[in-house]
Amino acid sequence: MVDIVVIGAGPAGLSAAVNAVTRGKSVRVFSNRDNYLSKAERVDNHLGFYNMSGKELMDKFRDHAEAMNIRVEEGKVVNILPMGESFMVNINGEIEEAKKVILSMGVSKVKEIPGEANLLGSGVSYCATCDGMLYRGKNAVVWDQSKDAVEEANYLQSIGVNVTFVSRNPHSEELSKDIQYVFGTLTQVIGDDVVKAVKAGEETIPTDAVFMLRDAVAPASLIDGLKMDGNFISVDRYMETNIDGVYAAGDITGKPLQLSKAVSEGLIAAQHAAVEIDKIKEN
Amino acid sequence: MVDIVVIGAGPAGLSAAVNAVTRGKSVRVFSNRDNYLSKAERVDNHLGFYNMSGKELMDKFRDHAEAMNIRVEEGKVVNILPMGESFMVNINGEIEEAKKVILSMGVSKVKEIPGEANLLGSGVSYCATCDGMLYRGKNAVVWDQSKDAVEEANYLQSIGVNVTFVSRNPHSEELSKDIQYVFGTLTQVIGDDVVKAVKAGEETIPTDAVFMLRDAVAPASLIDGLKMDGNFISVDRYMETNIDGVYAAGDITGKPLQLSKAVSEGLIAAQHAAVEIDKIKEN
Repeated sequence: MVDIVVIGAGPAGLSAAVNAVTRGKSVRVFSNRDNYLSKAERVDNHLGFYNMSGKELMDKFRDHAEAMNIRVEEGKVVNILPMGESFMVNINGEIEEAKKVILSMGVSKVKEIPGEANLLGSGVSYCATCDGMLYRGKNAVVWDQSKDAVEEANYLQSIGVNVTFVSRNPHSEELSKDIQYVFGTLTQVIGDDVVKAVKAGEETIPTDAVFMLRDAVAPASLIDGLKMDGNFISVDRYMETNIDGVYAAGDITGKPLQLSKAVSEGLIAAQHAAVEIDKIKEN
Repeated sequence: MVDIVVIGAGPAGLSAAVNAVTRGKSVRVFSNRDNYLSKAERVDNHLGFYNMSGKELMDKFRDHAEAMNIRVEEGKVVNILPMGESFMVNINGEIEEAKKVILSMGVSKVKEIPGEANLLGSGVSYCATCDGMLYRGKNAVVWDQSKDAVEEANYLQSIGVNVTFVSRNPHSEELSKDIQYVFGTLTQVIGDDVVKAVKAGEETIPTDAVFMLRDAVAPASLIDGLKMDGNFISVDRYMETNIDGVYAAGDITGKPLQLSKAVSEGLIAAQHAAVEIDKIKEN
């Protein structure tokens, strides 16, 4: 069990981690993609740093975290399950228990498709290694949206799932020969209680499951009942979401999408989470 | 006329100034005291800066501002007067017109005394050079609470005001010999429509005016009708106060009293002020 799991290692996530450690809390930080900041050519409006590239800034931030023994771990968080006093956080199939969770994955570019949210856990999965065994001897569609998609499709096929691979990328030579390849993109998940089929353009593909291997998971799909405000997560002044113990910080909470704001929100979320953890200890 | 006047040159004020300039706005920054941050022995929780003293951080912040040609001017703002589309800002008697004002003076240590707020402008003054001439041939008490108090008392006496100097400091040799010295501190201003007297401990001193020469002016006294939340200024999510065009940022808006928060709030206030200025231009 760890005090705080931080998801995302941009300015908000690293500020949260630094402040968690400053307050004597244990922390694990997961990230599975490059930060947008790293691509900024020049940043001039974050006080104390003048005429720096985004990459130079991110290096400074990472140096600070490393100096405090904070290690960023590669990993995609696929699900967060509230358990009363703590959370079960599923990172690519590994489960970590955490007292508090801070969401700082940046602007979400993930758009859900119709049927996805309501069939999540009933045939819709974000993680082949987590749920693959449930579909041995059955049919599953793998929708290619991340660099690991081919590997995960091969994994599913290897454990006995009958896989159809839907992709807009050319047929990969690395894709197992037993897997059926369909060029296209998914537009809908069909089914009432469980997945019956998916639509890929005009084509309807009957299936028992669909694995959506995106680099990121839409925030609202990570945790049940998370309140959104459009594409952003709703937070209060302590950066707490509508779910007790789950915080959000940085671009994921909305405009302005600015470095200074992300750093501040990471601090506020971590400090408040730390205060709440200490309260529980005292009781 | 300047686009934005920033009052206070700590992290919030400098972040506001940097972001105003980034958005192409003209800015003047006034400060009349040392920043608290300068006194911090070590700061570890502001992302990107590890193991630095408060002074080193403030130097970095000032360097950034200077690199963008932002000059911090020494001056105490004594009054802000809304004029519809702009504000008249009174800095030690000099008037600057500004489209927007950002208040970032840090935690207020100024405690008002009874009678002060309701008699402000009716005998209570924060600025000898501004209001002195009104009391030629009359009596005025000068309450010593700043390093300039003796100088200002002498000024008032020199223009024909009959001055009583109330101070907890020993009688200064620099105080004009014509000025009556009273050891003590003011506890109350007496009068219904205009100042009639002040109380200094047990003693009641009849007077037409009282000059309260503090280093800082309480925010609520700076501008009429400013909404407070206890000792802090109430702001919305854009850091705007209840008075259109007046923003607040940093410790002055309340907890957490943290560097990262101050920097973020300065940015948000300045960016929103800049957007509002551009709207007016377009109309």
